Formats: sequence, C-alpha cells, structure tokens
Amino acid sequence: VNDPLAAVLREIVGTQNVLVDPGIRAAFETDWTRRFHGVSRCVVRPGSADEVAMVLRACAAEHAAVVPQGGNTGLVGGGVPRGGEVVLSLLRIDGIEHIDPHLGEVTCGAGLTLGALNEAAGAHGLRLGVDLAARGSATVGGMVATNAGGINVLRYGMMRSQVLGFEAVLANGSVIDRLEGPAKDNSGYDLGQLLAGSEGTLAVITRLRLRLVPVLPHSAVALFGAPTPEAAIDLAQRARAHFDDLEAAEFFLPEGLDLVRHHTGASNPFRRRWAMYVLFEIASRKPDVLERFAEFMDTVPGLGEGQMDGTFAQDAMDRKRLWALRERHTEAINSEGVPVKLDVAIPLARLPRFLDEVRGAVTSFAPSARAIIFGHLADANLHVNILGADGHEEAVTGSVLRLVAALKGSISAEHGIGIAKSHWLGLTRSPQDIAVMRAIKRALDPEGILNPGVIFTDTARPVTPPARRR
Amino acid sequence: VNDPLAAVLREIVGTQNVLVDPGIRAAFETDWTRRFHGVSRCVVRPGSADEVAMVLRACAAEHAAVVPQGGNTGLVGGGVPRGGEVVLSLLRIDGIEHIDPHLGEVTCGAGLTLGALNEAAGAHGLRLGVDLAARGSATVGGMVATNAGGINVLRYGMMRSQVLGFEAVLANGSVIDRLEGPAKDNSGYDLGQLLAGSEGTLAVITRLRLRLVPVLPHSAVALFGAPTPEAAIDLAQRARAHFDDLEAAEFFLPEGLDLVRHHTGASNPFRRRWAMYVLFEIASRKPDVLERFAEFMDTVPGLGEGQMDGTFAQDAMDRKRLWALRERHTEAINSEGVPVKLDVAIPLARLPRFLDEVRGAVTSFAPSARAIIFGHLADANLHVNILGADGHEEAVTGSVLRLVAALKGSISAEHGIGIAKSHWLGLTRSPQDIAVMRAIKRALDPEGILNPGVIFTDTARPVTPPARRR
Repeated sequence: VNDPLAAVLREIVGTQNVLVDPGIRAAFETDWTRRFHGVSRCVVRPGSADEVAMVLRACAAEHAAVVPQGGNTGLVGGGVPRGGEVVLSLLRIDGIEHIDPHLGEVTCGAGLTLGALNEAAGAHGLRLGVDLAARGSATVGGMVATNAGGINVLRYGMMRSQVLGFEAVLANGSVIDRLEGPAKDNSGYDLGQLLAGSEGTLAVITRLRLRLVPVLPHSAVALFGAPTPEAAIDLAQRARAHFDDLEAAEFFLPEGLDLVRHHTGASNPFRRRWAMYVLFEIASRKPDVLERFAEFMDTVPGLGEGQMDGTFAQDAMDRKRLWALRERHTEAINSEGVPVKLDVAIPLARLPRFLDEVRGAVTSFAPSARAIIFGHLADANLHVNILGADGHEEAVTGSVLRLVAALKGSISAEHGIGIAKSHWLGLTRSPQDIAVMRAIKRALDPEGILNPGVIFTDTARPVTPPARRR
Repeated sequence: VNDPLAAVLREIVGTQNVLVDPGIRAAFETDWTRRFHGVSRCVVRPGSADEVAMVLRACAAEHAAVVPQGGNTGLVGGGVPRGGEVVLSLLRIDGIEHIDPHLGEVTCGAGLTLGALNEAAGAHGLRLGVDLAARGSATVGGMVATNAGGINVLRYGMMRSQVLGFEAVLANGSVIDRLEGPAKDNSGYDLGQLLAGSEGTLAVITRLRLRLVPVLPHSAVALFGAPTPEAAIDLAQRARAHFDDLEAAEFFLPEGLDLVRHHTGASNPFRRRWAMYVLFEIASRKPDVLERFAEFMDTVPGLGEGQMDGTFAQDAMDRKRLWALRERHTEAINSEGVPVKLDVAIPLARLPRFLDEVRGAVTSFAPSARAIIFGHLADANLHVNILGADGHEEAVTGSVLRLVAALKGSISAEHGIGIAKSHWLGLTRSPQDIAVMRAIKRALDPEGILNPGVIFTDTARPVTPPARRR
C-alpha cells in the first residue's frame, strides 16, 4: 500500500484504478487454466493510450516489469504475473467507437471482449471472423497480441488477418497511431503484423480497427466417422476442394468422444466406434446448404458401404448437438483434473505418424497419463491435453514437443509461447532466428520491462534496477 | 575490374557471376519506369542462401552497401542502385523445388518469376493468388519484399498473405530458415510478416513457400459505366455483398479510356461517356457465372433506365477485350511520355473528394500536366499517373501526396516507399512511428548495408567506412 510506484500510478489513473488489495488483485493473478499464478506488485487499469503511456513511463523510471493483460484467457501463462510485476489491465479501454456496416469494419478499444463485439456487430449482420470458446472473456487486444486462431481459420484466417489498423504504446511511452487509413498501405514496416503474436513483449495494444465478416444465415453441420486418420485427412481435403464456404473442419478421437459422452450424457452419433471423427460446417447466404452436403456425401468413397459413416444435422438443435461433441471436450477434460495443454501443428502428411507415436511419448515419462487430442483438422492443428501427468508435466511436455519438432511441426500453433514454452523455443527456432527476435525485442523494449519471461527465457525475472541515470 | 571486393565476390560465386562490364551491368542499373538509375559497384549473382550469406559478409567487411534485386519491375526505385552499391541479383535462385497439389503449396527460389511459377503450378490446376501485369519479369522474392498487390487482392489478399514459409539472410550473414513447418505457428515473432513489405532493407529473401489457389474454370467479366464516383462506389459495394467469388473490381476514368482507345484503336464500350467505369470479374468452379451476373444486374438500381450502363462479356475474346480497356492503361500512358507514377489509397468515402481535388493539386504546380487515374476500386487503391509534369515532378508529387495525407489516405498502397517516397514518409507516419521503424532497421542491419536510402532518407548514401574493427 505504501509502494511509491503505486502512488505515482494513482496520480495517473485515479485511486480506484490501482488495485493493491490482495483479494481484489487475485482475479488478475491466476489464469483460468489454474496452472499459472504469480503475485503482482499491483494491478493498474488505465483508460486510454495516454494513460498507458504515462503508466509505462512511470514503470520504466522504476525499472518495474509490466504484464499487459486482456481477458486473462491465455493458455501459456503470458498474461499473469510471474512475481512482482505490475499487471496492466486493458479491460477499461473497451469502447466500441464505430462500426461501419458498409465496409465491414469496427474501431474499438483493445479491452473489448469478443462477445460484446459480436453482440454489437450482430445488429448489423456482422461478426469477427475469428471465433473461439473463450468469447465471453477474451478481449480483441489479447486476441491480436496472441494472434488467436479458433475454429474459422480455414475460412477467414487468424487474428492477424483481421487487423486493419491499430494504436499501441511502446515501452518508452511512444504512442504509435495507425488506426485510421486504408488497409492497403505499404508505407514502411507493417508494425501491426509484428505486434500480432508478440504476446505483449513489444508494445501494449490499446485500440484496434478490425475487419468484420457477414453473419451467414444458412449453415449446415455434418459429422463423419473415419476408419483411419489417413481416411479422415483425405475426407477433409475433399471437403476443402468441394466447398467454397467451408467454415470449420474439426476432429476428435474415440477417447475424447467417450469422455464427452461420460461428462454430458450425449449418445453415440454412430453405431460403431471410428478411429477419427471429423466435423464440417459450411455457411452461406444461400439456403441450399443441406442439399450441397448431400451432394458432397455422394462423392465420398466408401460412405454407406460400412467403410465410413456420416450424418448431418437437420436443424439448429441438431447442429448444436453435433458441435457439442467437439466443443465440450475442454470442460470434459477439465472435470477429470488439471491437464497439461499443448497446442501443436503437424504437417498434414505426418499427422498419422504423430498420433501413432504421441501416446508412447507421453507414457514413457508418465506411465498412467493419457492424452486426449482434438483440434482443427484443416489447419493440422492439434490440442493435446494430457491428464494424469502429475509430477511429470515438464518431462511429458518436452517429450511431446520433441516429437513435434522431429516431425517438422510447430510447438505452438495458436496459443503462443508465453512462459509455458519459452524454454522449448529452440526446438523449432535456430539460434540465429532467436537472436534476431531478441534484437527486435531489444530495439522496441531496451529496458526489458514488457512481459519479461514471455517468449524468451532469459528475460524471466523483473529487471533489476541498474544505477539510476541522470 | 581491379576492385578488391569484386575479387572476393568472384571467389564466392564464380567469375561469371560477378558482372563488372558496364554494358552487361546496365540492365541491372535502370528500372523499367526509366525514372530511376544509378551506377553499381558491380552486380553479384549468388546461387544459394549460403552464397548470399558469404556475399553479405564480404560486403559488410568492406562497408559496401548492397541493393537486393529481383525482376527489377519495382516502381519506386527500391531495386536499382543509387550510385556505388553492389547489386545482389536473386535471379539465379529460381528453382521450383516442390509443388504440393493437395495442400496447394509451392517451395521455390526467390528469383523465380511469377510467370514461370504459374506455368508450373498450372499443370496442377493452381496459380499464385496475387497477379499483376509484370508477371513475366517480377520475381516472387521481390513480390514478397514489396508486399505486391495487384488485381485479385480483394479475393486472396496481398503477397504477405501467400507466405507460408521463408528462408532469408540477414545483413550479418545469418541464414534464417522458416521454410518448412505448418503455416499455423505462433512460436515467437512472425519474421516473415516483418520482411514482407520491408523492401530489402532488413534481409535478403532467398527461398519461399507460398500458398497456391485453384485456377477456376469459369469466369465472367462485366463493365459498367456510372454517372458519378459515388454511384460507382455504391455499385462496387453491392457487388462485394452479392458475390462470394468476386476476383476483381477495377476502375478507370473517361480520360484514361480515351487514351487507351487512341492508343489501341478499341471501340467505345458504351454509347455515352460515363464519369467512372467499373470492371468486375467473378470466377468459380461452377459454370453458372453468366447467369449470376445477369441476376446481379437485375438488382442494380437505374441500370437499363439510362442512369447507368452495363455490359458483360459473352466469351473469352470478349473478356479479354473488356480487360484490355483497363490493363492497357499503363502502355497507353507510357506511349505519351514518362509519367510520375503514384500509388495511393483513399478511404472509400473520401474517394470522390480526392478525384475532385487531385487535378487542382496537379495543375497548381504544373499547369499543363494531366492526371490519368485508374486502379483497384474495392481496395480504394488509385494509380495516379501524371503526364507532362516536366521539371515539376517533385512539386506535383508532394502536392498529390499532401492531399492524400489530408484525406487520411495511404501514400503508398502497394508499390512501397523505395527512394521515390522516402522523404514523404512523414506525411502519414508520425516521428514516433518512424523512430520505431528505424530501431528495427538498426536491430537487423546495424551497419546499414542493406538497401540504404530505401524507406528512410538518412540512410541514403552508402555507409562511410568507420575505423576498421579488429
């Protein structure tokens, strides 16, 4: 309470916006996976880019490390303190400034949640092209900072592809304003694309201009059971080639289906057990979506001959029921314990080999652990959830990520590196590559006050005060 | 010939790949607009990333500036020497290493031309999603380095959106290899997105993995005449909302049409003269493209009542004829003289005001000059070609770009800054913004040997040798 930095921050943002009470701070100090937790120096809640600039200057003057935080829905510990940092919450910068229904654009604060954005955009028949399960809490600023993905990437791209303009504050308090202006702009380096996915280590994003996409009135959902991962991949490739309007191509495995059915009481969608389940959604302005799914099914070899199975939803309730089998994986897994959550991508051709070998990679370090795997098949993006690794989390993580690297995959497809994977970055990034990323980090944040420990291991501790200058 | 650096470079790439003869060098020293020209120290043609690395290290040791060059089709002088630099030509690194028809990907050398790429990809029914008139010479490396745009941006995005992987060499000779692996990868900063559009100032791109799109068998082209720019913009918005498969929405003006007709002998597509002409193309896997255009025309208010006019191509010859009215603008303009070529974007709502005011902005500095304007309507991207500005090129350029900045436009939508616009960068980028771009430049190229003078003015001269270090 008598921290002199907190007193300075109160001058900037007002007393009520500097949280020092441990009970009130707690919600900002633990992430929702319950895996990452740290005690903050205080939580500061600025209301504008100018206030963010003053906060960062005040922190820099004290060599105090800062953790920018949005909705605190990250999965790699990048948005909660490690110990002693100032948490800079963006939640007060959440205004919807302008929606342009003709151009399909919104200008808003970084602290706006995806849910609130979609509610406002929905009045104009629009939504953000990125959607994810944490939509009620995840903020658009956090989604850009982590380059969020989700279920519609194959149609609309990741979060970086939605950014038309931004406002951000550098560690030195400079406000960079590229909010307005045409999206097509080759005037110097694309700083917005550099900040997208930089996980709060280069700047604090304060406002955004984002592309919106139409809410399409007609959608159809189909679920397939495939005898092998290879057959499932082939099916997904066929669907991509067949449909211009494929919105989702998700997959899960029988162990996951069992868990979800056990947790939710859902019935089995098929008579027999398949090696891989694939869920497709198409969405269109035109009503013929069911007919087109039926046409597609006619082109799938082996369907209806017992070599594959497929069903499609007849109505909205049915669609929801099929989606629940995929979407309720996370809560079903969480009900069994705190999983190790890994988010990887594997070149599609090597995906079957990964699925063959990943269980061995897990159980060799944690014999009683089990891996529940689901994800975005079109993107070759797998969410690997490991339950029962108690005490062996790091060994199991390393084992799985080494397998990913050996198959030339990505150790973080959409969740980011955070602090969870910073010491594994060298698995897929060469020393030269990491050196150039560090050089960029130093260029934008020479004192290392922004999110130390995230992405790069050796910035893990809050900077120690050198001799005060001038 | 007795330049010691040339001797070192010969050791690296072989005698035949270091060009010192002025006659042979000439093709690498003048850009195709004929506006930019400089004498090089020599031209070096490495054949691999390792050779590029050795070349850059040798140049760094001599503090010799390097201009990376692809097909030399840039329009802002960023790829030709200013005087005394080493030209590093990528044209020998032009192999097509792998085309994956299932995933729709190509891995190739940076010096491969777009035309050669599309020829090879065409055998698999694929092409690059970016297309532009210079396709015979433009290289994919240069297209990424300048984030090229072209006519299909509204469907497939700019060149940065096609990049799935890259290999590049930093000024210090480090080879960064992110060629393989899944496109979905949030493992640290997205260096590929930083290099896209950095115009050879941060690294030399040597190999690329690029997304390919299907060559669609059915296309339809329509041309409209609109009574006002506002009506043309409204029409383009309607087309975007109507079609999922709009590939192009281009525009030109009556002065440009007159010039093209005079140059090519083409007949007038409409009985009367319209204020703005809009050309649309849709492309699909399905054959009903003409029917869908007819449906669209029924929804356009005023069409067929004399308030607007429209025609659509009945066959391939017809499509070519309509496209020629737009595509032959450049050659028609060039036949009248060497134009000042500006490439700007204007927020769509302010486009009519820009068109109203741009002629005054030109003639106030060059009374007899005329502006021929055409471009990509959906992207609000205008190519402003000024003929007859003789002796007043800089004044006219400044006048137009100041107008663009006042309307919150972009002073370079797709061509880049190069040396042509480096002293205008401050019109749309704040001092803080330019400072952070310079910090990134220093971080990646501390000696300033890569393309000095491009983007930033004060790196305009080849670096002067400081005291040689150990």
